[in-house]
Amino acid sequence: MIFGSDNWAGAAPEISEALMRHSEGLAVAYGDSDLDKKIEKRFSEVFETQCAVFFVGTGTAANSLATAATMKPGGIVFCHNEAHVVANEGGAPEFLSGGGRHAPVGGKNSKIDPKLLDQTISGYPQEFNHLGQATMVTITQATEAGTVYSLDEISALCDVAKKNNIPLHMDGARFANALVRLDCTPAEMTWKRGVDMVSFGATKNGCWCAEALVVFNRDLLSHFQFIRKRSGHLFSKTRFISAQFEAYFENGLWLKLASHANAMGAKLEQAVRNSNHMRPAWPSDSNQVFFIADKTKAQTWLDQGARFHPFPTPKGMENDVTENEQIYRLVASFVARQEDVDQLAKIIST
Amino acid sequence: MIFGSDNWAGAAPEISEALMRHSEGLAVAYGDSDLDKKIEKRFSEVFETQCAVFFVGTGTAANSLATAATMKPGGIVFCHNEAHVVANEGGAPEFLSGGGRHAPVGGKNSKIDPKLLDQTISGYPQEFNHLGQATMVTITQATEAGTVYSLDEISALCDVAKKNNIPLHMDGARFANALVRLDCTPAEMTWKRGVDMVSFGATKNGCWCAEALVVFNRDLLSHFQFIRKRSGHLFSKTRFISAQFEAYFENGLWLKLASHANAMGAKLEQAVRNSNHMRPAWPSDSNQVFFIADKTKAQTWLDQGARFHPFPTPKGMENDVTENEQIYRLVASFVARQEDVDQLAKIIST
Amino acid sequence: MIFGSDNWAGAAPEISEALMRHSEGLAVAYGDSDLDKKIEKRFSEVFETQCAVFFVGTGTAANSLATAATMKPGGIVFCHNEAHVVANEGGAPEFLSGGGRHAPVGGKNSKIDPKLLDQTISGYPQEFNHLGQATMVTITQATEAGTVYSLDEISALCDVAKKNNIPLHMDGARFANALVRLDCTPAEMTWKRGVDMVSFGATKNGCWCAEALVVFNRDLLSHFQFIRKRSGHLFSKTRFISAQFEAYFENGLWLKLASHANAMGAKLEQAVRNSNHMRPAWPSDSNQVFFIADKTKAQTWLDQGARFHPFPTPKGMENDVTENEQIYRLVASFVARQEDVDQLAKIIST
Amino acid sequence: MIFGSDNWAGAAPEISEALMRHSEGLAVAYGDSDLDKKIEKRFSEVFETQCAVFFVGTGTAANSLATAATMKPGGIVFCHNEAHVVANEGGAPEFLSGGGRHAPVGGKNSKIDPKLLDQTISGYPQEFNHLGQATMVTITQATEAGTVYSLDEISALCDVAKKNNIPLHMDGARFANALVRLDCTPAEMTWKRGVDMVSFGATKNGCWCAEALVVFNRDLLSHFQFIRKRSGHLFSKTRFISAQFEAYFENGLWLKLASHANAMGAKLEQAVRNSNHMRPAWPSDSNQVFFIADKTKAQTWLDQGARFHPFPTPKGMENDVTENEQIYRLVASFVARQEDVDQLAKIIST
Repeated sequence: MIFGSDNWAGAAPEISEALMRHSEGLAVAYGDSDLDKKIEKRFSEVFETQCAVFFVGTGTAANSLATAATMKPGGIVFCHNEAHVVANEGGAPEFLSGGGRHAPVGGKNSKIDPKLLDQTISGYPQEFNHLGQATMVTITQATEAGTVYSLDEISALCDVAKKNNIPLHMDGARFANALVRLDCTPAEMTWKRGVDMVSFGATKNGCWCAEALVVFNRDLLSHFQFIRKRSGHLFSKTRFISAQFEAYFENGLWLKLASHANAMGAKLEQAVRNSNHMRPAWPSDSNQVFFIADKTKAQTWLDQGARFHPFPTPKGMENDVTENEQIYRLVASFVARQEDVDQLAKIIST
Repeated sequence: MIFGSDNWAGAAPEISEALMRHSEGLAVAYGDSDLDKKIEKRFSEVFETQCAVFFVGTGTAANSLATAATMKPGGIVFCHNEAHVVANEGGAPEFLSGGGRHAPVGGKNSKIDPKLLDQTISGYPQEFNHLGQATMVTITQATEAGTVYSLDEISALCDVAKKNNIPLHMDGARFANALVRLDCTPAEMTWKRGVDMVSFGATKNGCWCAEALVVFNRDLLSHFQFIRKRSGHLFSKTRFISAQFEAYFENGLWLKLASHANAMGAKLEQAVRNSNHMRPAWPSDSNQVFFIADKTKAQTWLDQGARFHPFPTPKGMENDVTENEQIYRLVASFVARQEDVDQLAKIIST
Repeated sequence: MIFGSDNWAGAAPEISEALMRHSEGLAVAYGDSDLDKKIEKRFSEVFETQCAVFFVGTGTAANSLATAATMKPGGIVFCHNEAHVVANEGGAPEFLSGGGRHAPVGGKNSKIDPKLLDQTISGYPQEFNHLGQATMVTITQATEAGTVYSLDEISALCDVAKKNNIPLHMDGARFANALVRLDCTPAEMTWKRGVDMVSFGATKNGCWCAEALVVFNRDLLSHFQFIRKRSGHLFSKTRFISAQFEAYFENGLWLKLASHANAMGAKLEQAVRNSNHMRPAWPSDSNQVFFIADKTKAQTWLDQGARFHPFPTPKGMENDVTENEQIYRLVASFVARQEDVDQLAKIIST
Repeated sequence: MIFGSDNWAGAAPEISEALMRHSEGLAVAYGDSDLDKKIEKRFSEVFETQCAVFFVGTGTAANSLATAATMKPGGIVFCHNEAHVVANEGGAPEFLSGGGRHAPVGGKNSKIDPKLLDQTISGYPQEFNHLGQATMVTITQATEAGTVYSLDEISALCDVAKKNNIPLHMDGARFANALVRLDCTPAEMTWKRGVDMVSFGATKNGCWCAEALVVFNRDLLSHFQFIRKRSGHLFSKTRFISAQFEAYFENGLWLKLASHANAMGAKLEQAVRNSNHMRPAWPSDSNQVFFIADKTKAQTWLDQGARFHPFPTPKGMENDVTENEQIYRLVASFVARQEDVDQLAKIIST
């Protein structure tokens, strides 16, 4: 009954096999091996457009280096109040971009409200050095709250970014979970809507350690090799990441894994709805489910072996949660088991 | 005949198997899994002392975060002129330490001269803010020139560091190669001689991606968790690194792999000595061999399929290399094959 | 009728005379002249305690270097939502502290609420690297809203800081204005209440360019000389700052200038209260007065030669200002003239 | 007999008078006053071309912000081994540029050798992220060794910079001293030779605190306002700098002051040549004179009240200075007195 996080899972067997398969032989290091080049091309096929791909090892690195690549002196990145980049990355985007700052924007269920975004950006008039200058918008898909931006919602935010002449970045730590939910192509969820770059996460969805910054807008690329190196994020044996991506994309493994996680998420949500001792905090669109429950009651479930974590109450929801209550998060990983969901459902029903 | 670098090799089969073995099941993320804890203890056994261990993904990250952990405002790190940290890490130690600088020190064959070290440090009197303040000494073992500091040489440098009240860090990208050469214990090569922390590299010696900052002097630890996180270097599924180290230390795998690489290095050096068309640039102690040859001649060997790279002429050796000549580097990896060495020996003899 | 800002004024004649007086002769540079030493001692007299004093040229520098001096990796500074440091310094405290971040705290009239402060700090549990670690509290006295913390309010915030083991810094850009309002000694407003360091601003109150970081808690000093130098904020001819402070403290000049500015502020507030076309946004305690008025109406005053600026609506006051209205700020400087106040009063009454 | 440094002098009376003259009245802050605008135009007249001018308070700030304005990720600045920016600014250019590094270049008498410059730059091939990317060349005029680049020497270095597509910056801490030596116009010494920007120093030559970054190549300007603000280097009452420059340029004051300092420098050099107890370290071109003398002997002069400092032996001159000897520096400021020179001459002759 472990639903603590999707990064508690290890790796899909196909991923480990790919690592085994590619472990022999000698190959050029630092991103120039044949396998590296092949996988870079594979990304362009997956996204149906010529894109630049940079492998890194953590989602925080991908997000931070995207921030660095678009940074200007006094630069401001616009994100949701609850975005991982501003709330949970220990200051990495700020540090690795050499002093960038976040301007948090509101919006329901961890989705940025386009009107508030435009308003917030307009608070930073060009050339007024006392405040700062707008450099990037970043959205998380699926969001930190388990919700998923619709294609039209993505378009609306991209339009605001474009109007303000700044790029839009998508933190895709759970890209696949959002994709299978929307049942669309990677292209439709990104550049066709105006997204300029994506932190394409595979670690949470079955890999050991495989993240890629995928860049559609090639103007943003100029110094990326140097940005990655000066941050210590260039691996020597990059093919160990490429190998993981090879298996990840093969036979739609990534979509299968994400579909499974989402399906288990839906079952978790059903269990939440069936229980008389909790209520959903908001509707879930993916593999993360949030519920509100009495703290003492929740402790009894934890005591019975369930594993889940409290989640900070989002701004604007203060009145939805009483003093004795708390919001909790359940996450179904790519290896979540039906039997664990059933057992949890049973426990929380009493 | 590929002797370009030791990071052109993939991973030892034992490493991939360990990854396969540990890929199932759920475990706490971010360094708190049982396996992580077990391997941390394993390090204390290997080094015969209680030490703190921090996993990272690249040697540059290990070196840079060590630099950050000891940094002070206006801080100066003392290293050899040819040290990887100052010459080949794209400014990562400077950037990730928030503005640290290197003061390069001379010494033969890429080894810091203790007397010059003391002199250089004394050029930064305490409290004189126009220059900077001494923060750390870093040495590379085995060095970038394939040489190995003797235990007494390590002691001498540690003594200078101690006298000046700054810690000494060892960049152990090729720690195992040095260790088998000296035929001593890890403890004897490090803390017993006064080393305060080590970037313990396993990637070059048979892992995919496994580096650890090993810290003996616990005063240096205070903020390390935050330093690693703010740089984007904390992996979520840290057990993929622990798993590699488990196999690495099992049955002395690491020593076997390094011994093989060194043995192949010795054969390469013999081949160099046997050839009439080149001379050793300096004696090698490990798996890296350096020779001086006519550039046109060297090209003929490259044309026949040999792979090796030119190496910048160290300071002080300008007169040892004529205008038509160049220093070249041969590296034997843990999978270097006797047949390739033989073939190279044949080619360079004609 | 220029009430745009107190930094639109030049310098008091006594300040320029001091510069003339000390312009001759040779003196040690970089802070070690006799005059520098004398003025440092003068600060200890003014504050009735041994304190360390560091001269800088801008308030932003003083605040940022204080931030840097207390910074830790992943560090978080707690300030009010509307604090100058987070809202108007172009990212300098973040940049000059090598990656510090602000956690804004609420509270009425730009004063931090001690309960909210404690709550916000507790959101950063020690050793949880995903968030950050608490490093400093900073309060502004007088505040950006023209209000002044009472001595008890200062004590309450210092207590919260102490309880959480972090220092409290006071941004005293308008220190003198607050002091004369409270009619207390500098000691009573600072270290006797628990303040650890002060950005002591004199520029707004009659100097050309004279700011000092005054540090009571000497544990915070260790690397300050290096912090200032590496930021380019160490002047060579520091005595030009000392000379200004000499005149500033002589015969209570600083208190006279601030008293005048506050008195003119009180008259401005009276004029606001007397007008039927505006209302005070909140009560003023010093030389800054804020009013709410119809935008079109305000424009007519500007057209008649009045100079004042709009001010962003503070969080929580959104419902106090209608769509056609705006908050505006009036600032009385040390050279504000009765006749200008009278003329403004006349204009805004019609 | 104080010849310790030119920043031991205070300010010329004309400078203080200008401060007095402009101290009254209200004026827009932060660089937008009428006086600020007037003085900016004055710079364009002085340099006979449209240039952008940014006031700052220290030479270190001017140099560091120039470095920041041209910085790229992994960026490298090429300067002389003995340049102030790499040797004496406490790491400010590196810190304020967010991680820039210096690649020191050799050359006689503190002047960069154009051939060595080209060689050094070529050591950083484009797109090779392990090393870094070339971003700027900086030269000091007059140099730290009191020598002055001829116009042709400046041209040669600008040509190398241009060929490598990087801008050339001139650290003009002693700009006026070089100018009167070359007896040419500011235009001839800068943009007509290919210089892209100048740190125009006036502090050492009679001002209290007046430095300006003068930019001829407007492509380099884009974010400068933000760069200055985020570093805390934007003064509120900028007219206090403008006022100094107004007097500085009036009636050729700046050239008179520098001519005097150089003339006194020439007399100091003559005194050095006349003495049997020392020899010139190299020929001086400006107000700084360097001599080699026995340390014990030098102490006797210091004991008689002379003030001067030791100077580190430049690379390549190690054999010119015996173990008992030391290089010393004498600096004649704009207020240096004939009688002090005479007295020193007398002392060192015995």
